[in-house]
Amino acid sequence: MAEPLSLITATPEEGRQLAIMLARKSIVAMQPDPEVRKALRPDYAKDTMQLMIAAQVVALEFQTIAQANNHWKQVFTESQPES
Amino acid sequence: MAEPLSLITATPEEGRQLAIMLARKSIVAMQPDPEVRKALRPDYAKDTMQLMIAAQVVALEFQTIAQANNHWKQVFTESQPES
Amino acid sequence: MAEPLSLITATPEEGRQLAIMLARKSIVAMQPDPEVRKALRPDYAKDTMQLMIAAQVVALEFQTIAQANNHWKQVFTESQPES
Amino acid sequence: MAEPLSLITATPEEGRQLAIMLARKSIVAMQPDPEVRKALRPDYAKDTMQLMIAAQVVALEFQTIAQANNHWKQVFTESQPES
Amino acid sequence: MAEPLSLITATPEEGRQLAIMLARKSIVAMQPDPEVRKALRPDYAKDTMQLMIAAQVVALEFQTIAQANNHWKQVFTESQPES
Amino acid sequence: MAEPLSLITATPEEGRQLAIMLARKSIVAMQPDPEVRKALRPDYAKDTMQLMIAAQVVALEFQTIAQANNHWKQVFTESQPES
Repeated sequence: MAEPLSLITATPEEGRQLAIMLARKSIVAMQPDPEVRKALRPDYAKDTMQLMIAAQVVALEFQTIAQANNHWKQVFTESQPES
Repeated sequence: MAEPLSLITATPEEGRQLAIMLARKSIVAMQPDPEVRKALRPDYAKDTMQLMIAAQVVALEFQTIAQANNHWKQVFTESQPES
Repeated sequence: MAEPLSLITATPEEGRQLAIMLARKSIVAMQPDPEVRKALRPDYAKDTMQLMIAAQVVALEFQTIAQANNHWKQVFTESQPES
Repeated sequence: MAEPLSLITATPEEGRQLAIMLARKSIVAMQPDPEVRKALRPDYAKDTMQLMIAAQVVALEFQTIAQANNHWKQVFTESQPES
Repeated sequence: MAEPLSLITATPEEGRQLAIMLARKSIVAMQPDPEVRKALRPDYAKDTMQLMIAAQVVALEFQTIAQANNHWKQVFTESQPES
Repeated sequence: MAEPLSLITATPEEGRQLAIMLARKSIVAMQPDPEVRKALRPDYAKDTMQLMIAAQVVALEFQTIAQANNHWKQVFTESQPES
């Protein structure tokens, strides 16, 4: 059974991957047919405007995930050697 | 009688579904005719730019819902076994 | 005399209606002529891209209204029976 | 001498007016020539897509102003009769 | 040597100027050639849609700067005469 | 081994660079082929609309990074001489 969706991730990098996954999840919700989605890929994969609009979606989803994880501050303060 | 609208959901997944519902609710408010909306579906279902703009709406609504639910932090901290 | 504008609403549903009203208020501020606005309706009412851009405005206004009402958390925690 | 710019307003309605003013201020900063701006008005005044994009700018500026004024909560809680 | 970039400004007006500067800084980062940028100016200076998209960038950057300066609340509360 | 991604930066300027890097990281995630990306550069490098949409992505990512770094307030309050 797939892990239940959580916004909590161990690292910012995982947060980025989650943001991309959530952005794609929205597309799937609106266009559920995998064959159609596959056929549509060329429409945006080489269209810089659409790549940037997609990057906006990732940035918005990532902002939410970063807030959920308190911007992973504790991950990096813990890993800093006592100066 | 339909449940009154609430932003509080049990899980992030329900939060995603609510975000999609709210995005659609806005479209209904501006285009109340279900037959027109049904006829319009092909206009965006295979238009990657419009699918991405729709994904932006979902991301914005989801950010609001995630803030309403404190990013479901307690859902996942409670479900973590005592380490 | 019209009620002074307030962001405080009793329920999320009223918050949605207020968000739509504020979005329309902005359009009125930029295009004050009601006859022109009425004539323009067909331009977006069947244009899915414009309906989605309008939904973004509603989502942004709703985020502000939800923050103003502390996401109506107290409305739903008060109405929960003591478990 | 013009009042120095402040984000603090007495009411949400004044906040809306300030948001529209700030949105216009940005346009002036990028297109300082008043004659050019006046000549450009017809380009957007009857273009529903552009009116909606402008409404997004107002919604964003208003969100900032609402946060600056703590969403005018105290304005409406003070004016509520003691129930 | 240029002052190091800071988000802290004395007034909201300086915050607006900083927001416009940051928006332009992003354009410079993506199109570093000043001659190209100068040649491109006519492309947006009379295009109302692009002026509004630019105003969105300013509104977003300004929101961040306003949060950094606690919306300059102390600037205006200090300058209010004791009522 | 590349440094793990962190949102914590020493200065706002580094925050800007990180925001641009994150925006580009999203484009890479959606168009992994470096040769394709290189070939696409002319499509946006002289397109003012696309440069502005890209600037929106940077502004959004920067807002998240600024929140992660508490807007670098301590960096500038520490460096202010005791008045």
